[in-house]
Amino acid sequence: MRLPSPLSGVVPPLCTPLTPSGDIDTRSLATLVEHVLSAGATAVFVLGSSGETAYLSDAQRRTALRAAVDAVAGRVPVLAGVIDMTTARVLDQARAAAALGADGLVATVPFYSHPHPAEAATHFRRIRDGVDLPLLAYDIPSAVHTKLAAATVLALAEDGTLAGLKDSSGDGGALRRLLVALRGRGLADGFSVLTGSELTVDAALLAGAHGVVPGLGNVDPAGYVRLYGHARAGRWAEAAAEQDRLAALFALAETGDPAVMGGSSSALGGFKAALHLLGVIDCPATAVPQTPLPDSAVRSVRRYLEEGGLL
Amino acid sequence: MRLPSPLSGVVPPLCTPLTPSGDIDTRSLATLVEHVLSAGATAVFVLGSSGETAYLSDAQRRTALRAAVDAVAGRVPVLAGVIDMTTARVLDQARAAAALGADGLVATVPFYSHPHPAEAATHFRRIRDGVDLPLLAYDIPSAVHTKLAAATVLALAEDGTLAGLKDSSGDGGALRRLLVALRGRGLADGFSVLTGSELTVDAALLAGAHGVVPGLGNVDPAGYVRLYGHARAGRWAEAAAEQDRLAALFALAETGDPAVMGGSSSALGGFKAALHLLGVIDCPATAVPQTPLPDSAVRSVRRYLEEGGLL
Amino acid sequence: MRLPSPLSGVVPPLCTPLTPSGDIDTRSLATLVEHVLSAGATAVFVLGSSGETAYLSDAQRRTALRAAVDAVAGRVPVLAGVIDMTTARVLDQARAAAALGADGLVATVPFYSHPHPAEAATHFRRIRDGVDLPLLAYDIPSAVHTKLAAATVLALAEDGTLAGLKDSSGDGGALRRLLVALRGRGLADGFSVLTGSELTVDAALLAGAHGVVPGLGNVDPAGYVRLYGHARAGRWAEAAAEQDRLAALFALAETGDPAVMGGSSSALGGFKAALHLLGVIDCPATAVPQTPLPDSAVRSVRRYLEEGGLL
Amino acid sequence: MRLPSPLSGVVPPLCTPLTPSGDIDTRSLATLVEHVLSAGATAVFVLGSSGETAYLSDAQRRTALRAAVDAVAGRVPVLAGVIDMTTARVLDQARAAAALGADGLVATVPFYSHPHPAEAATHFRRIRDGVDLPLLAYDIPSAVHTKLAAATVLALAEDGTLAGLKDSSGDGGALRRLLVALRGRGLADGFSVLTGSELTVDAALLAGAHGVVPGLGNVDPAGYVRLYGHARAGRWAEAAAEQDRLAALFALAETGDPAVMGGSSSALGGFKAALHLLGVIDCPATAVPQTPLPDSAVRSVRRYLEEGGLL
Repeated sequence: MRLPSPLSGVVPPLCTPLTPSGDIDTRSLATLVEHVLSAGATAVFVLGSSGETAYLSDAQRRTALRAAVDAVAGRVPVLAGVIDMTTARVLDQARAAAALGADGLVATVPFYSHPHPAEAATHFRRIRDGVDLPLLAYDIPSAVHTKLAAATVLALAEDGTLAGLKDSSGDGGALRRLLVALRGRGLADGFSVLTGSELTVDAALLAGAHGVVPGLGNVDPAGYVRLYGHARAGRWAEAAAEQDRLAALFALAETGDPAVMGGSSSALGGFKAALHLLGVIDCPATAVPQTPLPDSAVRSVRRYLEEGGLL
Repeated sequence: MRLPSPLSGVVPPLCTPLTPSGDIDTRSLATLVEHVLSAGATAVFVLGSSGETAYLSDAQRRTALRAAVDAVAGRVPVLAGVIDMTTARVLDQARAAAALGADGLVATVPFYSHPHPAEAATHFRRIRDGVDLPLLAYDIPSAVHTKLAAATVLALAEDGTLAGLKDSSGDGGALRRLLVALRGRGLADGFSVLTGSELTVDAALLAGAHGVVPGLGNVDPAGYVRLYGHARAGRWAEAAAEQDRLAALFALAETGDPAVMGGSSSALGGFKAALHLLGVIDCPATAVPQTPLPDSAVRSVRRYLEEGGLL
Repeated sequence: MRLPSPLSGVVPPLCTPLTPSGDIDTRSLATLVEHVLSAGATAVFVLGSSGETAYLSDAQRRTALRAAVDAVAGRVPVLAGVIDMTTARVLDQARAAAALGADGLVATVPFYSHPHPAEAATHFRRIRDGVDLPLLAYDIPSAVHTKLAAATVLALAEDGTLAGLKDSSGDGGALRRLLVALRGRGLADGFSVLTGSELTVDAALLAGAHGVVPGLGNVDPAGYVRLYGHARAGRWAEAAAEQDRLAALFALAETGDPAVMGGSSSALGGFKAALHLLGVIDCPATAVPQTPLPDSAVRSVRRYLEEGGLL
Repeated sequence: MRLPSPLSGVVPPLCTPLTPSGDIDTRSLATLVEHVLSAGATAVFVLGSSGETAYLSDAQRRTALRAAVDAVAGRVPVLAGVIDMTTARVLDQARAAAALGADGLVATVPFYSHPHPAEAATHFRRIRDGVDLPLLAYDIPSAVHTKLAAATVLALAEDGTLAGLKDSSGDGGALRRLLVALRGRGLADGFSVLTGSELTVDAALLAGAHGVVPGLGNVDPAGYVRLYGHARAGRWAEAAAEQDRLAALFALAETGDPAVMGGSSSALGGFKAALHLLGVIDCPATAVPQTPLPDSAVRSVRRYLEEGGLL
């Protein structure tokens, strides 16, 4: 399926449901796909950070992507994360994703090693040369510890290497300047800019972003679709009100006990606990070695869902 | 003069003009005050980061604040930065600022040392106890290397220690959640939230911030006043367009040669070069030990001013 | 082959020679093995950071490890790096390494995600449970952005999960305290502490470390063997003099052009250029997407080799 | 008093005793001076990080420095920290310190702002030009968030701007390379290199450092003098054993409750609690806004003193 240019709307970065024994729960993944498509998602993003991709073996990645492609069944495009340390490894992930039917790829800059911007550009060019699918850059310095430079993005947009950007940098000022620069070069229409910052979606859309990839959109895709609709219709006060509600709901991502688990485990555990409480997935387990959410945290998640009107 | 509650509108963080020999140029500072007040600034912020406060001796700080208070002459409130390493030193700065007629104080968390949130709270409480002026917290982790925790801000808003926040963290998601939490506790109306992120002002206002403290507002205060007006009137598309123009203009803050100067020197040098080219200040010099902008950079600044319609 | 307990001496983290087309050059790798074994290396570490492991596909990793195991031919133990993002992936790498004949494994904490110390402990326990080979923790915060906590290392040493530590943290104070604590608990003799900080090997040995894993030891293994011998014999002044010579030689790791390549690329390129100039490997190429060393840098590498008495 | 060139031996960075009401306790400071001089300190460093200088008002700084100069009474040189944000402010501190009788000055790079290395060099040159006292650079990135570049130190050593370096960077590899480079340029004898890393003093001396400025040397100056003596006499095993004992003793710097206080507060509180328990100072209070050590922590400090043979 051809990726729209630009890709717009709400593109949930799907969680990867697991069975109690840690296998991919493909049935729950299919249910999650329905959950977000019935709410109006315009595409799905499989194997992103919210999908615990960093935690999955290659076999698990393939299982999850195949299950998502099957469940989506061509109704919307499927973006696949190809998250790995450097070029050769990303190329292997990319070839596997292409073979499984992904409609577009999302790759970060190299990590573990520290790339120079020139090396980051080479990285994306080699990936694009190696696999014939639209390629989006995934700017997520909290995970990869390098901010993708605007000059690099602009050069790779101009020469056609990149079809878009998923911006999870949290740097709204840099995103603004990039959007202005893309428009200044006549590139804005064909280059998809998606924000991954789920708490400032109204702001990103006001600034000209085309769409949103919200982790919290696993839990409340309808909320993000409403927010997107308000923004596209110019109902900015309504968009902001919806964003406010979602910002309050985000508290469910911070219920974990900081004495035994990291912030990422708390967020991923919160999303899955919520999906379990909503009846979307069968089991809220997160991947090893993440500490599971304690019961008290799950109760807090339930409360936030109730306060957010979802339960 | 009593600080409005909440303080709203455009509050430029005034540059501190220097003579070629490095003294405070009080005449140029007075001209700068007229430049921003005639454009519609609702207050001024003296001795902030844009004011090169970190570079000024205590005597220079006093000279600058006195000159600003004199020039403003009671037309709008004067906020004074009291930037210093820890509580006792900030208290000394605060007493000096109060004596010189400041209407409100702006203090960061301790730096050099690394405070625990509980220690940051003690810090603000001691300052507030020591000087009878409204106190705003200045959240600027790029300078002080500690992000002010939302829970700390909320507690200090609730008990009346803080009258407001100048948020220069660049973390739009955290700002959003703070604004939602303040409203949830009924604190939003009396607690001033000002964004220092000059590239996402439309977003901050859409999220509920009361005002903006834009470094670039030294150069183009009228632009920020227009942006603020559009936002207040609900003309969000117009606000975004104005923000886009200002985002492009911000290129004047990045003209310096990275081989011999830091990013901060480049930005401060760019603001002052622009003010000099606009005829507002007599000399574009920045404080020692900053490397001055080379001529080629000044030519770039001129070009950006022309492209931005200011020259 | 059974890993000595503790493992001591000089354990070079082998570079991974590549052909001009980017394939593993197994013949050069075998020559490199002879280069270090003939100098007196007590073990080799394959697939570490110096081995560009982050850049290698899984197939390339297997090829390199197989070639190293073959070349070593049981003369010394072979440690294999099993560097990957999280537990499930590391387990896959570990099983592959075990199948190929590794005598011990070296694993980092999870990266991309940010583990809590409790989660890091779970990570190492699961790896140890899954593969029956001695496991060393690889503390390298410059790559994985988490410092392994001393309390975690001590707990995992005490319960037998870890057989040792490769400390590339550069934090000599923390290493000192860990060594003192290990001795205090009677664990020092059976728990291998190896420093990866090639510029302070005399210091680490004086503090009680058992051995060293020096990237620069690819280039000058004999120098590190002499340094180790002096230290073991209590000839500390001679050890320090040898360390000084090696510290000067390390300049060959910093010849790259910072305008187009990162520091890591410069170091890896410098090691390989030196090995090529010394006639050990056939081709100095580093893996994609690293920018190759320019000719001027290679001339500098040659000069440093001459000044260090190696050419 | 003329500063020796190079300055060698043990130079304790004196704690600044406070009264319960937060004033400088000059009598206790005098006792502390006797405590370290009688143990064999070769100089004292007043107003360093261990002296809580960041927390002291300018008046308090003057009081503390005057008291230390009086107590030392010319028996050894007095180094004064002139810690402030940027050049003009450091110059004010430096002039005050010179007027009070300091024999040498210790200054960091600018902080709050982020200096380029060229700007850091300008900074030190202006300070040296402004006050006629030997100037040491204080490399403490944990506090000022910039690592002093080796090239900058070498250039400023070569042109006579700097008389030495206090290295609290914790980067033993960089220190090693600097020492090698200084010797290579014939600068080692006249340029004082002092380590502030109290856990790796044996290593620094083995590498060629001239002396040590150990915060823990407030508590156990005799231990550091013994360690220094062993090292100078080439008794490295004995030096390492003494360092090991001191490394264990350092546990007294980490007894604070992380739920309510920062690591720096814990360390400063631990040093002062120990000095109080040893009868050297009258009151263990640390400066506002630091959370005081709880009683349980003070009991731990006592235990560590007992285990270290000091009580």
